[in-house]
Amino acid sequence: MKTNLNILKIGSNVIDDDAQLRAFLKNFASLPSPKILVHGGGKIATDFNKKLGNESILIEGRRVTSQAELDTVVMTYAGLINKKIVGLLQQYSCNSIGLSGADGNSIQATKRSPQPIDYGYVGDIQQVNSSFIQLLLDNEITPVFCAISHDGNGQLLNTNADTIASELAIALSSNYATELIYCFEKNGVLSNIEDENSVIETITLADYEQLKTNNIIVSGMLPKIDNCFHALSNHVTKVIIRNADLTSTQAQTQLKLL
Amino acid sequence: MKTNLNILKIGSNVIDDDAQLRAFLKNFASLPSPKILVHGGGKIATDFNKKLGNESILIEGRRVTSQAELDTVVMTYAGLINKKIVGLLQQYSCNSIGLSGADGNSIQATKRSPQPIDYGYVGDIQQVNSSFIQLLLDNEITPVFCAISHDGNGQLLNTNADTIASELAIALSSNYATELIYCFEKNGVLSNIEDENSVIETITLADYEQLKTNNIIVSGMLPKIDNCFHALSNHVTKVIIRNADLTSTQAQTQLKLL
Repeated sequence: MKTNLNILKIGSNVIDDDAQLRAFLKNFASLPSPKILVHGGGKIATDFNKKLGNESILIEGRRVTSQAELDTVVMTYAGLINKKIVGLLQQYSCNSIGLSGADGNSIQATKRSPQPIDYGYVGDIQQVNSSFIQLLLDNEITPVFCAISHDGNGQLLNTNADTIASELAIALSSNYATELIYCFEKNGVLSNIEDENSVIETITLADYEQLKTNNIIVSGMLPKIDNCFHALSNHVTKVIIRNADLTSTQAQTQLKLL
Repeated sequence: MKTNLNILKIGSNVIDDDAQLRAFLKNFASLPSPKILVHGGGKIATDFNKKLGNESILIEGRRVTSQAELDTVVMTYAGLINKKIVGLLQQYSCNSIGLSGADGNSIQATKRSPQPIDYGYVGDIQQVNSSFIQLLLDNEITPVFCAISHDGNGQLLNTNADTIASELAIALSSNYATELIYCFEKNGVLSNIEDENSVIETITLADYEQLKTNNIIVSGMLPKIDNCFHALSNHVTKVIIRNADLTSTQAQTQLKLL
């Protein structure tokens, strides 16, 4: 039997709200180890960019990462947000370590081709250094990943946090039974976006095709669910989409291949 | 015989100059392991504060760390500078990991008393987690520390980088023969601040008292040299003050108790 490994991902909505972030981290700290946390922070980077007088450019909801924008995401993700989270987890007796993909060479990526759309300094993950992550987990240190990778040639790259979470889960599946848990502002995948009680409790791959055809799942949810099925197709044991209140007994969405 | 451990510290002057930083890191990468790098970044934080429209307040050359200033130093030290250094060291085949004192609970501090001067969120180091640092070194991972500690209760604290370097050297002296090397913009401690060739090659504790009395060593150099002697008085094997060109054969300053 493989040991369970929980990989949780939180986004800007949780991070932005100090009380909600603390509540989440307190609950996360009390989850059994081993575990990994992955965080985004796009809204905070956008707000910060505004303060600096830079404009964040998004194409189809994805950030175009100029050099100035890369500096901003490195400062906010790897600096401000990551260290705040690690400091709070230490307070809640969870010995954690904040990581970008450059740290311990943990996540190598290549800069995305500028064709057909030039997203700038954005990375597509090539390799996860699971022996390094294993070393930390074996020593009861909880990794906290921000959404930054590197190319091995000195270039940091902005990388989607959902993808980092799924690629970590896939890479670590050879040693663990990995559970991937995406925590966000809704209770799960909703059949009616206006109704928090319309959580679809199970979505199979066949259901997903149907839900897309019927325009029930659209826009921002699509890459998230694609990540989920990619993980399930690559040895990840369980994938959940849910809210960030880990004490909640609300219905949530579980993705299943069949 | 204990293994040698080199602990190098670089300041803003090296970090600010991209070519100089790369040259330094390339040479640092080729030094034998185990080794540790500690970096400051005060000038970059000050420049960045200006961009944000905040004013950096210094009392007797020391930064007063308000909440806004703490955010700035966390973003610039732990984010921008630390991740740039780690990315470049990976390029130069030195597997490194960037750390604040919160990461792995590596450096715990207490917030300095607001009496007689309130420096805000500034930390005085209480404890170095040498078993965590040892774990990294044993696995050929080079720690890169920024000048941030934490209090264990969720509060990050701005902490002098020279002091971080000396406290790391002291804490690791039980397992290693530690050499502490402060790299800065001059060739060493100068007897005439105008003359780069006036390096004082050896300074004993008795010499230091004399040099202070004669006003040859003044202002900013005093806390740096106090750190050096504090380290030598606490089992650190060797302490050097020199320039950041590690290939240079220029005269440099060695501090000695006797």
